[in-house]
Amino acid sequence: MSHGPARKTLQAGVTRNDRLMSDGRTIRYYDTEVIPRTAQDQRPQEDQPEIGELRLDSLLNEWVAMAPHRQSRIFLPPKELCPLCPTVGDLLTEVPERTYNVVVFDNRSPSLRPPDQDWVLPKLLGPSTATATAAGKCEVVCFTQEHGKSFADLSPAQVRTVLEAWRDRTSELSQLPYIEHIFPFENRGEEIGVTLAHPHGQIYAYSFLPPRVARMLEAARNHKELTGRVLYDDVVAREINEKVRIVAQNQHWIAFVPFASRYPFEIHVAPRTAVADLSELSLEACDAFPEIALEVLKRLDGVFAIPMAYIAAWHQAPIREDRDLLRLHWQITSVRRAPGKLKYLAGSESAMGAFIMDMYPEQSAQQLRNVVLGK
Amino acid sequence: MSHGPARKTLQAGVTRNDRLMSDGRTIRYYDTEVIPRTAQDQRPQEDQPEIGELRLDSLLNEWVAMAPHRQSRIFLPPKELCPLCPTVGDLLTEVPERTYNVVVFDNRSPSLRPPDQDWVLPKLLGPSTATATAAGKCEVVCFTQEHGKSFADLSPAQVRTVLEAWRDRTSELSQLPYIEHIFPFENRGEEIGVTLAHPHGQIYAYSFLPPRVARMLEAARNHKELTGRVLYDDVVAREINEKVRIVAQNQHWIAFVPFASRYPFEIHVAPRTAVADLSELSLEACDAFPEIALEVLKRLDGVFAIPMAYIAAWHQAPIREDRDLLRLHWQITSVRRAPGKLKYLAGSESAMGAFIMDMYPEQSAQQLRNVVLGK
Repeated sequence: MSHGPARKTLQAGVTRNDRLMSDGRTIRYYDTEVIPRTAQDQRPQEDQPEIGELRLDSLLNEWVAMAPHRQSRIFLPPKELCPLCPTVGDLLTEVPERTYNVVVFDNRSPSLRPPDQDWVLPKLLGPSTATATAAGKCEVVCFTQEHGKSFADLSPAQVRTVLEAWRDRTSELSQLPYIEHIFPFENRGEEIGVTLAHPHGQIYAYSFLPPRVARMLEAARNHKELTGRVLYDDVVAREINEKVRIVAQNQHWIAFVPFASRYPFEIHVAPRTAVADLSELSLEACDAFPEIALEVLKRLDGVFAIPMAYIAAWHQAPIREDRDLLRLHWQITSVRRAPGKLKYLAGSESAMGAFIMDMYPEQSAQQLRNVVLGK
Repeated sequence: MSHGPARKTLQAGVTRNDRLMSDGRTIRYYDTEVIPRTAQDQRPQEDQPEIGELRLDSLLNEWVAMAPHRQSRIFLPPKELCPLCPTVGDLLTEVPERTYNVVVFDNRSPSLRPPDQDWVLPKLLGPSTATATAAGKCEVVCFTQEHGKSFADLSPAQVRTVLEAWRDRTSELSQLPYIEHIFPFENRGEEIGVTLAHPHGQIYAYSFLPPRVARMLEAARNHKELTGRVLYDDVVAREINEKVRIVAQNQHWIAFVPFASRYPFEIHVAPRTAVADLSELSLEACDAFPEIALEVLKRLDGVFAIPMAYIAAWHQAPIREDRDLLRLHWQITSVRRAPGKLKYLAGSESAMGAFIMDMYPEQSAQQLRNVVLGK
């Protein structure tokens, strides 16, 4: 199961075909038509980079991943050298086929890598905690073969295929014994540090509970004890009730600016029927996702009439513990606070963790609602 | 006591003179010679901006400060309109005097403001937690009147005066009943979001425990229970013992790249004799600070031979609880990882709190030690 079958049928008419790359990595083609995926990776074999380290920051009891091989990773190449475009002619890219819909392949410069079989996370003992190899898995998700597009330009059917790929990866990565948490996300825009312009996202599968997830779990546990209810359900109920921060909605999803957002533009997109992760979404909820996803991203691009730099993050429940305490939601945060101005994480945010917001969430929800969408 | 005496004598021959600004704010002149500070603020009276809100992000149980009036604050003005230069001729700046050494004045666009007398922080109750006014205090610290200089260009005597100002503010702000934590810091460089080029820092005095301090306290409490020792003392002892990450040292201070640093260049500067905050430093430690502070900042500027963008953060123990568990240290973090490349807080760092480091701390310590310092 760990590499999946060579061909697999998923929901919404999507099939997946797996191929090996010349350095041993796997590429998975997600298609809605039956397309033979037989192209060979023509590139010479290449050694995979060394695995990094997990070191404990004992002052906060948080793991930090050291991935020094990433310093030399490719940085904003010109369009004609894009490694995420299909392979056409002499330029051998990460995708051997001449066309593709959606592909997911193992990251060439992964921060986290599959460890040896006997790998275990060290016990937390303060400054004397042992160092571990940086176990986990990092994958790249290409949303479309078209270099100049962005997620917001995809058709609803394309978004549906991307969703199916995310769901498939979540299910399969959940089976790996060293994985604790799965995080599909997209960084968009140079302002946010994107090093490749081609529309793509990533999946990080962590071998430890990410610090922010650990804190969300703690808050959810307290709330459960206090009220018997799931915290995120109460948060969504409040937003539905107060209405002022809702940005978009349909029968299965609701999108709102959170009551205490940390960024000038922050949106949560949550299913009305709460689930733990992408793999648990109903067929109806899946089919209703493209509409709200595209609306939300177009509203973001519309606020200042320029492509909005954002981080779009899928929050899921951890794989192995407290799956009933955290809920699936898609959190989109943008650092742009005005047409030439970004919100920076400076002293207060970075060193103290105390966020200062330059506008009220109700104002940003209003601005997002005011965007007139083309059809 | 809350406004301090009009004239106050501090250590190292520094005296402080207070003046009222025309909108009711206070400016404090720190000088080493006796200089009469009598200049009047000639600007018309101006209403102070409305106080913002503290809202609880219940998903993390963390307060977020809403300060919407800050949207319109002044943004990278040209040198001849700098509000932090002394007042010369017609340009009426924040500093009415024609010359100054070090001044500290109340921020004109504060994120946090002194509240009404009956202010209390609401109880944490999840999504139903009440909203509070954004209580606290924000001050601006001008390091020198010379617009084109930076902290690293100051003379040791000037750094000593700045240190005395930080110490004085820490002592005085600690007396305010609504203050829980005091945070003097400097953001340096446009890459980090600095909106005024004049060499200056800020002081945030929070009415709540900043989230990162709360987590450091939790780790320190666990360590104390487990070992009977103070966590930060053990961290410093380890660095002294392992040597490989030490960047600079003298008789009273040690500067090192932490074992699990989160940024390409991160340095902790800690006193060898542990104290809770700036006000507790011995006279000898104070007098030995300028040397190591200047060395560390010059090494940072030397790594890529360009002024390094950084956040320099004073971590202090909270005012009211567990003062024996946290230790004073000066943490300098830089996001520059290579000459044209910044480290961004993207998906993994921002949404998951899981930091990925592009180099080993030992490498960055080596690079810092390799910098050849001018005299």
